[in-house]
Amino acid sequence: MDQPGAVLFDAYGTLFDVYSVGQTAERLFAGHGQALAAGWRDKQIEYTRLVTTSNHGAHYRPFGELTRAALRYTCKRLGLDLAEAAEQQLMDQYRTLTAFPESREVLQALKARGAVTGILSNGDPGMLDAAVRSAGLDGLLDHVLSVDGIRKYKTHPDAYQLGVAATGLQPDRIAFVSCNGWDALGATWFGFRTLWVNRYQLPFEELGTPPERIGSSLRDVLAFF
Amino acid sequence: MDQPGAVLFDAYGTLFDVYSVGQTAERLFAGHGQALAAGWRDKQIEYTRLVTTSNHGAHYRPFGELTRAALRYTCKRLGLDLAEAAEQQLMDQYRTLTAFPESREVLQALKARGAVTGILSNGDPGMLDAAVRSAGLDGLLDHVLSVDGIRKYKTHPDAYQLGVAATGLQPDRIAFVSCNGWDALGATWFGFRTLWVNRYQLPFEELGTPPERIGSSLRDVLAFF
Repeated sequence: MDQPGAVLFDAYGTLFDVYSVGQTAERLFAGHGQALAAGWRDKQIEYTRLVTTSNHGAHYRPFGELTRAALRYTCKRLGLDLAEAAEQQLMDQYRTLTAFPESREVLQALKARGAVTGILSNGDPGMLDAAVRSAGLDGLLDHVLSVDGIRKYKTHPDAYQLGVAATGLQPDRIAFVSCNGWDALGATWFGFRTLWVNRYQLPFEELGTPPERIGSSLRDVLAFF
Repeated sequence: MDQPGAVLFDAYGTLFDVYSVGQTAERLFAGHGQALAAGWRDKQIEYTRLVTTSNHGAHYRPFGELTRAALRYTCKRLGLDLAEAAEQQLMDQYRTLTAFPESREVLQALKARGAVTGILSNGDPGMLDAAVRSAGLDGLLDHVLSVDGIRKYKTHPDAYQLGVAATGLQPDRIAFVSCNGWDALGATWFGFRTLWVNRYQLPFEELGTPPERIGSSLRDVLAFF
């Protein structure tokens, strides 16, 4: 197979390490940090799906708003009293994430191989721009693609189609990298050549259609070349 | 407002008590029954959303198959070795559920008031028919509507539209009852008059649009009349 002309990355949990969110949660709610961070993340993803599916997307809201709603729900669910300052502190974490240690080196190696690079994320443009700058990845990304313009979240095919439109390449010339199994599955179904970076030794989804590659670090994307 | 001409119920967790699934899980995997039952349910719902959203539903599979896939995933995730006999035992539970104690009496009361009654469920027809018979609710339901014919799961509007098509009533003449917050939200967004039966004292979803009624038992549906 030809090598990909472009490599698109998921953002949260893939290029950007969201571990610090859990640390802040633990500092604010001792003994509940892990449950809060995990429940918050699950609810955030659930909300992206509910607004995408229901009434043909009429209830779309940007990722930042859904993230805040998910935080509020999860605190209520866990019986945690979320003061305004704590809410803002947790939300601000999403704007100042660090990149995974290998993110920078992998993007540089891809540029050296002549690949177009980009992010294709559920995040809204403001959140993504802040995270890219905070993680020091500006200058290494040709595209920062947000679903916000089309008001549908991954795994809707219109979301993955953004990568086709931005690069001018057919899906089978685009490599897609995600640490989220569901995202790797959706991208594979869409037609991208997909690497699932399985950082946490999880089973893959049981819906058939494995991704082309499964790895343990972003470095494994170089095997496409 | 006019009283509803029809009342449609969600099935699993609403009319049918899925508690026995957790009991069987605990008997098979002592100490892990609760985690297995909860994880299984979450994954089952997640899979309905993934196949509905991705590639415009091209990856649809009936609820029974998704339920089995979700069970396999969750056991792998929890490091539980799922033998074939145990898998079948857990799957069979879904066919032999009991109804919640008030289900029968509420359906009878609705019939006495002249209301059309029905189920509108993600379950496939085989699963639903078995559960209706097992719970002794046959004869009290005018409609047993499965999304299987349209190959899209709730909260897709086409799923709720099945209720409109079957009853010939506009959405605002149909009361919809669910114990699942996300389902009550989707039904409200669709335009049904909705009762969320909050059996487990959970917070409602933080996406606005509260249901018309929130109750603690199916009996609360009688307040529509």
